[in-house]
Amino acid sequence: MSWEHRAQAKREAILAAIPQEWRIESLPEVEEQVDVSGEYIRGFLSKREVEITETTAEGIAERTTKGEWRAEEVTRAFCHRAALAHQLLHCLHEIFFDAAIASAQALDRYFTEHKKPIGPLHGLPISLKDQFHVKDVETTMGYVGWIGTFEGKKGTGKEKVYESEMVRELRNAGAVLYCKTSVPHTLMTGETVNNIIGYTLNSKNRRLASGGSSGGEGTLIGARGSPLGFGTDIGGSIRIPAAFNGLYGIRPSSGRLPYEGMANSMDGQNSILSVVGPLATSAGSLRLAIKALLAQKPWLYDPLVHEIPWRDDHDREIRDLIHGLDTGKGRLTFGVMRTDGIVTPHPPVRRAIDILVSALQNAGHEILEWTPPPHKPLLDAALATWVYDGGADIKSAFALSGEPMAPQIAMFGSLDRESGASEIAATNVRLRTLKKAYLDYWISTQESTSTGRPVDAVIAPVAPFAAARREKYGYYGYSVWVNALDISSVVVPVTEVDKAVDVVDAGYQPLDEADRGVYETYDPEIYHGAHVSLQIVGRRLQEEKMLAIAEYVGKLIGK
Amino acid sequence: MSWEHRAQAKREAILAAIPQEWRIESLPEVEEQVDVSGEYIRGFLSKREVEITETTAEGIAERTTKGEWRAEEVTRAFCHRAALAHQLLHCLHEIFFDAAIASAQALDRYFTEHKKPIGPLHGLPISLKDQFHVKDVETTMGYVGWIGTFEGKKGTGKEKVYESEMVRELRNAGAVLYCKTSVPHTLMTGETVNNIIGYTLNSKNRRLASGGSSGGEGTLIGARGSPLGFGTDIGGSIRIPAAFNGLYGIRPSSGRLPYEGMANSMDGQNSILSVVGPLATSAGSLRLAIKALLAQKPWLYDPLVHEIPWRDDHDREIRDLIHGLDTGKGRLTFGVMRTDGIVTPHPPVRRAIDILVSALQNAGHEILEWTPPPHKPLLDAALATWVYDGGADIKSAFALSGEPMAPQIAMFGSLDRESGASEIAATNVRLRTLKKAYLDYWISTQESTSTGRPVDAVIAPVAPFAAARREKYGYYGYSVWVNALDISSVVVPVTEVDKAVDVVDAGYQPLDEADRGVYETYDPEIYHGAHVSLQIVGRRLQEEKMLAIAEYVGKLIGK
Repeated sequence: MSWEHRAQAKREAILAAIPQEWRIESLPEVEEQVDVSGEYIRGFLSKREVEITETTAEGIAERTTKGEWRAEEVTRAFCHRAALAHQLLHCLHEIFFDAAIASAQALDRYFTEHKKPIGPLHGLPISLKDQFHVKDVETTMGYVGWIGTFEGKKGTGKEKVYESEMVRELRNAGAVLYCKTSVPHTLMTGETVNNIIGYTLNSKNRRLASGGSSGGEGTLIGARGSPLGFGTDIGGSIRIPAAFNGLYGIRPSSGRLPYEGMANSMDGQNSILSVVGPLATSAGSLRLAIKALLAQKPWLYDPLVHEIPWRDDHDREIRDLIHGLDTGKGRLTFGVMRTDGIVTPHPPVRRAIDILVSALQNAGHEILEWTPPPHKPLLDAALATWVYDGGADIKSAFALSGEPMAPQIAMFGSLDRESGASEIAATNVRLRTLKKAYLDYWISTQESTSTGRPVDAVIAPVAPFAAARREKYGYYGYSVWVNALDISSVVVPVTEVDKAVDVVDAGYQPLDEADRGVYETYDPEIYHGAHVSLQIVGRRLQEEKMLAIAEYVGKLIGK
Repeated sequence: MSWEHRAQAKREAILAAIPQEWRIESLPEVEEQVDVSGEYIRGFLSKREVEITETTAEGIAERTTKGEWRAEEVTRAFCHRAALAHQLLHCLHEIFFDAAIASAQALDRYFTEHKKPIGPLHGLPISLKDQFHVKDVETTMGYVGWIGTFEGKKGTGKEKVYESEMVRELRNAGAVLYCKTSVPHTLMTGETVNNIIGYTLNSKNRRLASGGSSGGEGTLIGARGSPLGFGTDIGGSIRIPAAFNGLYGIRPSSGRLPYEGMANSMDGQNSILSVVGPLATSAGSLRLAIKALLAQKPWLYDPLVHEIPWRDDHDREIRDLIHGLDTGKGRLTFGVMRTDGIVTPHPPVRRAIDILVSALQNAGHEILEWTPPPHKPLLDAALATWVYDGGADIKSAFALSGEPMAPQIAMFGSLDRESGASEIAATNVRLRTLKKAYLDYWISTQESTSTGRPVDAVIAPVAPFAAARREKYGYYGYSVWVNALDISSVVVPVTEVDKAVDVVDAGYQPLDEADRGVYETYDPEIYHGAHVSLQIVGRRLQEEKMLAIAEYVGKLIGK
């Protein structure tokens, strides 16, 4: 069978898993309905379904763990909305609503019988990026050649049986799994496109990318077809879709959450590790999910997870500092990175920074300009790690079916040499040296703050634009530096593009051709209404603190 | 200048740093004085010097931090004994007694002035393996080509100025640095030999190796020329010398203590990381040093250190379990690994295991046979990581001077190909898979223990022999599996070889040629009196618990 037929069959099988009554008879063209995230999608839902699906994960769990909402009703509502989202956005790779409803019913029976929830996520639907293995469904990761296989191999005995470690933990905590979300084949781009489901659109502005590689997660949660989902991030793949879809999303440091047993690209490249983390509509929801996982001691099941339980004292330290504001003892100090000096962010991103800085200053916090060691060497080192194998892993995945690469990742096809051990070792030393210099800079800021502490967090763009336009994702530097340093970051939604305010910076003189390329992709007409988000970046393994700060910052600006 | 002359000049400069009054006029031949660690070396010392140098690091710090002992007197005593040890054993690469005495005097002045110590290690002399950079002295790491350079390079501006991060922390805590200890060139063997200082002997039995690669540390502390020192371990290099010299030594998991700014071999190989840790004459001394370092938050200065402060609750958990023995609630469960199925340990090592097992059983603890997944694949994967670069780094270090490789590491000279990125990635995946299988086995033991917990620690040999005979270190499997898994291990001295008891196992049928090779190196006449030690192995990042267990076990058997 040709790759086209195999892809089509899979695409149709995904659609076929959507019950007839949830089909949208006449799908609107993009220009007909640019924003499908709000009123439009609500038009297909009951009032009760809207109420459920527009509650945060935290809010849902509060009700389902008390028996106020039943898991089945919650699950059905999200299945319905996810089904609509997929038809409008192409965001799902696997749909298993029946299994989800059965597990929700089992949870409801458990609650009735025991008068208590099975765990902190009892009855909460959670979507998963299509790198997680879940029994009874496939993992294609967008590769046609992976259809009907286990990670491209047949006869492993793991096909549709094996589950990733985190899936086990989520089930233990009471989560209801119901769909797996789209990714770009290779996972190595900020747009989500593959030969199975096509191109995943941004629910808030379908002219724009959903982001990537966790783009299916981003747009699905953006459309409220999921309250919370898990993505992965090796160069921005959690943060980019979180940012493009107006969500909170955390990129933890490696070793905090269990990646064990997930499919991946270029597995075994361990200079910069991909990490797994949640995206959701509130910072509190992210905390809920991480606490639920850490409570299960993932270090007993994933040899790469550090034994660092959830640290309430870290969380409290930030809260106490914020509460101490009135007495003048509580201020936080933020570094602000308006530009990385390589590519200048678009006007809406710059305005978002101004919004955040003003809000924080007005609340009594301190802002310092962030002038770290140059980012360019970090980006170069990161790029080197992604091409270590000369594209061998990726090319072999395409070769399985003969399908073509999307233009967004065509670079991998043109690679023709593997790095050798000495070259890899040199890159590892370079990365460590750069990490040390960055850390030294960070700690040195304690000389400049009024608190005597180093800068608590850095406010920075996630990308130079509100969202990428199709095939115009020209620069990854704003997300990649965080991966190169393996530090922690939480994305916070800040505002939306307003074409009346965010006009083109007509007199702007681009720094170079790369900067010009990004500059020229800004068009207020196209971008109008798009989400604009920023990241709150902390040192390595500062997940509790960054979540506390992100939650506070979000409240401060009314998000 | 020829490498011979450069080596000789350096060797003479080391000796020249020893004051005339501390020279041993007539050095005894090995067979004349096999054991120089006890009465023999005491013969050169005053009663007071013996009292000081035979006190544990913990005991010394207790007195120096209270002002009961003065730093200068303590320092002079250890300088004297270290000078004697070096003449008898060839264990020092750098001697800086004058700087040490000056810093001890400064500490004494501080105490006099402030009536308090500068830190928890106030006035404690600490020896360092010759990978640490200390200002005013060189780091040769045993390479003739590194003499007069910074890690083989000239004109870096770092020569004799730069200090490794941990050196800064040790000084902060009040430690007195006074010497750097010998290593085998390359660091990649369990014997300590190089073309500068020659062969480092075992102080308890000079017919045997001091171990390696922290062999200078091992024998120096064994001779009580240092109360505590730091070594590194990528395949056993802390534990082997600790074991061979009857010491406590800890191999922490990577990321627990700061390696930042240290010289290394094959730097940038990051599949299995070398780690740094202390060796000393008591478990409590190791705890003291680790707590002193962690109290300085090394994660603010070394980007690879995890933010895991000293965990008193972990320590307490073990102590509480031990104290609970009387009520029947407190037993610990040990796995015992009598053989790895590849090479059978010599009779003294097997007897040491029996001693420990009996002592623990008599005290009410539980012993299970340790039947983990096979170790062979772990050892193969570890070996693969050490030859990634085809010996390039090592060969270039030898090429600097033209000096020859010692036979113990000649294997590196015969390598002729670098691994490629795909091969390295495959090894990384293999290592992760093996770690997962091992962890799963470990956790599964909770089904077999009476406590409901997984095995608390594993008792295992560090090597198949009490110590290696020169050029007869035939098998590294007993130390390397711990590195491949990146788990925590503390060495505990158990007994001494007794030729009357530890007779040759005459009827033994070797499993294969490798096993036969090790079997045949046992000779009770040669081994008589040698230290016999074992390791207490825990899961990853279990340093507090393994130290608490090691301390208890040591007390139980009277060590």
